[in-house]
Amino acid sequence: MGKIELRLQELGIDLPEPPKAVANYVPCVQTGNLLFVSGQVSANLKGKAGADVDPELAYEGARQCAISLLAQAQAALGDLDRITRVVRLGGFVNCGPDFTAIPQVINGASDLMVEVFGDAGRHARAAVGAPSLPMGVTVEVDAVFQID
Amino acid sequence: MGKIELRLQELGIDLPEPPKAVANYVPCVQTGNLLFVSGQVSANLKGKAGADVDPELAYEGARQCAISLLAQAQAALGDLDRITRVVRLGGFVNCGPDFTAIPQVINGASDLMVEVFGDAGRHARAAVGAPSLPMGVTVEVDAVFQID
Amino acid sequence: MGKIELRLQELGIDLPEPPKAVANYVPCVQTGNLLFVSGQVSANLKGKAGADVDPELAYEGARQCAISLLAQAQAALGDLDRITRVVRLGGFVNCGPDFTAIPQVINGASDLMVEVFGDAGRHARAAVGAPSLPMGVTVEVDAVFQID
Repeated sequence: MGKIELRLQELGIDLPEPPKAVANYVPCVQTGNLLFVSGQVSANLKGKAGADVDPELAYEGARQCAISLLAQAQAALGDLDRITRVVRLGGFVNCGPDFTAIPQVINGASDLMVEVFGDAGRHARAAVGAPSLPMGVTVEVDAVFQID
Repeated sequence: MGKIELRLQELGIDLPEPPKAVANYVPCVQTGNLLFVSGQVSANLKGKAGADVDPELAYEGARQCAISLLAQAQAALGDLDRITRVVRLGGFVNCGPDFTAIPQVINGASDLMVEVFGDAGRHARAAVGAPSLPMGVTVEVDAVFQID
Repeated sequence: MGKIELRLQELGIDLPEPPKAVANYVPCVQTGNLLFVSGQVSANLKGKAGADVDPELAYEGARQCAISLLAQAQAALGDLDRITRVVRLGGFVNCGPDFTAIPQVINGASDLMVEVFGDAGRHARAAVGAPSLPMGVTVEVDAVFQID
């Protein structure tokens, strides 16, 4: 069992069956030492942060996006130990014009990466609002990983 | 005539004269084996998807963005055969808070890439809504290509 | 004194103390020859472009984001002369559905990069609207730099 697989087990995190690509894009593309992962959504959490969805719950939605990113990377790489650094996360929060706690929501994804990878999980990120997201989900996060 | 140029001809796609940079940014930057292409907009399609613009028409707008991305890459590279993989597309749909068919719109860009490049056209992507886009256009898509 | 440091002095630009990371993400991650810098916000400029904030002032906000990007890169690299190209800027403008002068706002960041780096400051970019940004700021810009 790999080091990261073991760490996920310690944290009680089961990687879900990664969502299939439903169109002409794919979950992951590797180029050189970089793995680009498509935006993963909080499939079970819909509605606008701050209006329909409490910020604390939206944080959990962002965490779920991060877990889906790992599930996709696992399926693409075979072994999450091949990830040597989380390079960048791009986070989008479905919200109205008055919701400003966007960083606090995306922290759900950032915290998960550091729980799993330690210092190698610390990443650059951008976090912004969106008036709407695919299927009305609350959070979408995409990623760039460095791999060996 | 290059392989991709021939494929575009088979598909009946004429690459337009690529829009000039109108400010202190440029259409394309190459770094190592990656070509970053600036966001291309559906210049002839304005308004909000789902309100002013039918989703089917917005799909065509996204396809037009993808054709502009290729026109810019062609101008930068001289030969689209140098593209060995479409790595990532970032898609933004101009819409209100209730429009959720964002993936279906951005599929217009994704489908074009696979029509042109086959499996090498399958890419990672993020697709989100935006409350507004430059000049009121309906769709904006940017890209990262892998080149030889 | 480095060439870029001297250029900043000529331009009368003092790099601020870069904002600390306040969560499990970091300002910069280097991978290979690329430096990914987290989204920097117009911390002193809040509100919606076109409604609360004039476009000209929003331009200054974008310029401030670019200066913060340089401050973060300086802190990470030690020497801005190590930047050989500004590869990409991603710009987000906090605005309502009717504001379309998004490129003009983000030009504040693009212009700064070219003032400082000359032709090496010309970059690919995407510029889009957002219904809200962290802490209600008017502009957020992230960056990818090529370094030696």
